[in-house]
Amino acid sequence: MRRKDFPSSPLGLHRVIEPAGALPQAAWRLDPSPELWPDEARVRVDRLNLDAASFRQLSGAAAGSSNGGGTDLAAALRAAVLGIVAERGKMQNPVTGSGGMLTGVVEEVGPDSPLGLAPGDRIATLVSLSLTPLAITDGLARWDGRSEQIPCDGHAILFGRSIAAVLPADLPVPLALAVLDVCGAPALTSRVVRQAAAGGAAPAVAILGAAGKSGSLSAVAARKAGARSVIGLVPTRAEADLLTSAGLADQVVIADARDPAAVAESVRAAGGPAQVTVVCVDVPGCEGGAVLATADGGTVIFFSMATSFSAAALGAEGVAADITMLIGNGYVPGHAALALDLVRAEPGVRRIFENRTAEG
Amino acid sequence: MRRKDFPSSPLGLHRVIEPAGALPQAAWRLDPSPELWPDEARVRVDRLNLDAASFRQLSGAAAGSSNGGGTDLAAALRAAVLGIVAERGKMQNPVTGSGGMLTGVVEEVGPDSPLGLAPGDRIATLVSLSLTPLAITDGLARWDGRSEQIPCDGHAILFGRSIAAVLPADLPVPLALAVLDVCGAPALTSRVVRQAAAGGAAPAVAILGAAGKSGSLSAVAARKAGARSVIGLVPTRAEADLLTSAGLADQVVIADARDPAAVAESVRAAGGPAQVTVVCVDVPGCEGGAVLATADGGTVIFFSMATSFSAAALGAEGVAADITMLIGNGYVPGHAALALDLVRAEPGVRRIFENRTAEG
Repeated sequence: MRRKDFPSSPLGLHRVIEPAGALPQAAWRLDPSPELWPDEARVRVDRLNLDAASFRQLSGAAAGSSNGGGTDLAAALRAAVLGIVAERGKMQNPVTGSGGMLTGVVEEVGPDSPLGLAPGDRIATLVSLSLTPLAITDGLARWDGRSEQIPCDGHAILFGRSIAAVLPADLPVPLALAVLDVCGAPALTSRVVRQAAAGGAAPAVAILGAAGKSGSLSAVAARKAGARSVIGLVPTRAEADLLTSAGLADQVVIADARDPAAVAESVRAAGGPAQVTVVCVDVPGCEGGAVLATADGGTVIFFSMATSFSAAALGAEGVAADITMLIGNGYVPGHAALALDLVRAEPGVRRIFENRTAEG
Repeated sequence: MRRKDFPSSPLGLHRVIEPAGALPQAAWRLDPSPELWPDEARVRVDRLNLDAASFRQLSGAAAGSSNGGGTDLAAALRAAVLGIVAERGKMQNPVTGSGGMLTGVVEEVGPDSPLGLAPGDRIATLVSLSLTPLAITDGLARWDGRSEQIPCDGHAILFGRSIAAVLPADLPVPLALAVLDVCGAPALTSRVVRQAAAGGAAPAVAILGAAGKSGSLSAVAARKAGARSVIGLVPTRAEADLLTSAGLADQVVIADARDPAAVAESVRAAGGPAQVTVVCVDVPGCEGGAVLATADGGTVIFFSMATSFSAAALGAEGVAADITMLIGNGYVPGHAALALDLVRAEPGVRRIFENRTAEG
């Protein structure tokens, strides 16, 4: 079952059907057929984990089309995901552009695959579903539509550079999957806070959405990397209580992350403005608040896939804010191990993840 | 003519009609009425300069609706811009989210305005049209639709933090306006290249779209900031000849910036990968090429308003690229003076600007 009719690329260019020449992430449609090129590996999928922005968008659209009934809603969500995967050969939300990740068992490994995987390995992908060829064979019948973690049977293809992590034996799979899904956030936060601390005084770090998954991990990472103070911003009293009891932030403030003036004022009152601001809120419209909460010379890291490039660029320019704005690259070397170690070491983070994984 | 019914904000929050609480840039609709709050200034507008991504989008849409006739096209473009400004109280392209800038003469200055302007000053705004309250009174009758520089009569409002530059006496207004429109790009490029050079070896810098306005200025800025080599990427032989004759790049390569493999290969062949890559191409789909052209540990600066946040974030993650990706903040202290000085000192850049200003 090897395909050699034309050569493969470690980036997966050989699986792009349209438009020709695009990278798989940017492509509209991929070829998910199970036959492998020599440097590929195939995974038997058992679970998809949609990213938060995508799941939120799909849920909203499904609620609009299903009159709100629970059964209807689940059916509408299943139909939406199945339709996308059938049309595109990958699970990439056409509205948000984002995907998520998957877990499964390695089924076959091409002789030239550089990933170091063996058949039988239980893995999670660390590259996005938005570039991973995928076919679903069970109609998602076991998904109740209430969680972004979708039980699923099917197969996926890993290219030469599609990095994956063997799932740790000491953590439950849903927990490990949820942690690996956002592991780029704490890794990049850690790097930026370390650089800021090395360049002068220890920074104040504001985390927007600090009681969420990427937010709680980023809060802990910031503290360990030398933050002077971690300011956690959350939208509700319930989230504030959760964050306070987890002990992950020095200051907990409540504000709507989409309200720029409120965000700026609450961060200021908690000891800001921040030298580093980390945006982990998966709703549109958080750019302005992040800009205003950040001190001149400071840095904003945008992890939310709901971030608008032009809103961030023009928002900072529009208020003459001399700040550095980073697109949250999901890849930082060592990110998976760093995030898993944070969860092992910090019971507060683990509680937040277990809480969120159970509820969703 | 002072309004004191409720207090003003230097950010312009008091001019936001909907949605309440949004910053002017993110708002759908602003109040452009001419009466001033005490910290505002009003400008008699004589020219709008749409940003390149917006003008390209509007032109494409107008061509689609006007059957391609020149007169029809101009009428369709006028109607589009007038419609946006009438509906939103500002010139913000709803598709690209971007705006541009304007020139005019200061007409009235509130007693508390911190901008240092006086009535009669000829100025250009350095904040985006996407956040500047604007009313047009001449129907754009003098605009032929062929250039993004629009002769215009009307008024605009400057908030306390809406920075503006008095136009230099030694440069023609269309030239100065075109330079100021993109002055954030060379300033941020200069800073990033300087930092890279300070941290180790002088960097190779790739400029995608190097024969354009922001691209040519960024190329010169990179060289002055200590680049080891400037690699200019352009789409056509004509642009390559223009760039070569201007003498702004050490290497000139021809490739479609939307073709990731072609961009990576041509930059590599010219001495790359780059430690710093600057994206100045105002078409969608340039994220992948920029990522692949950049060395591990390097930096990509995205200046194009056509950049997709998720395509950049997931594109880098998808190929395990450990690179820093910056959202091109249009504000860097001293950016206007730096860009104008580059044009004064570099005849090659000035020729490119005069060429582009004349043709468009």
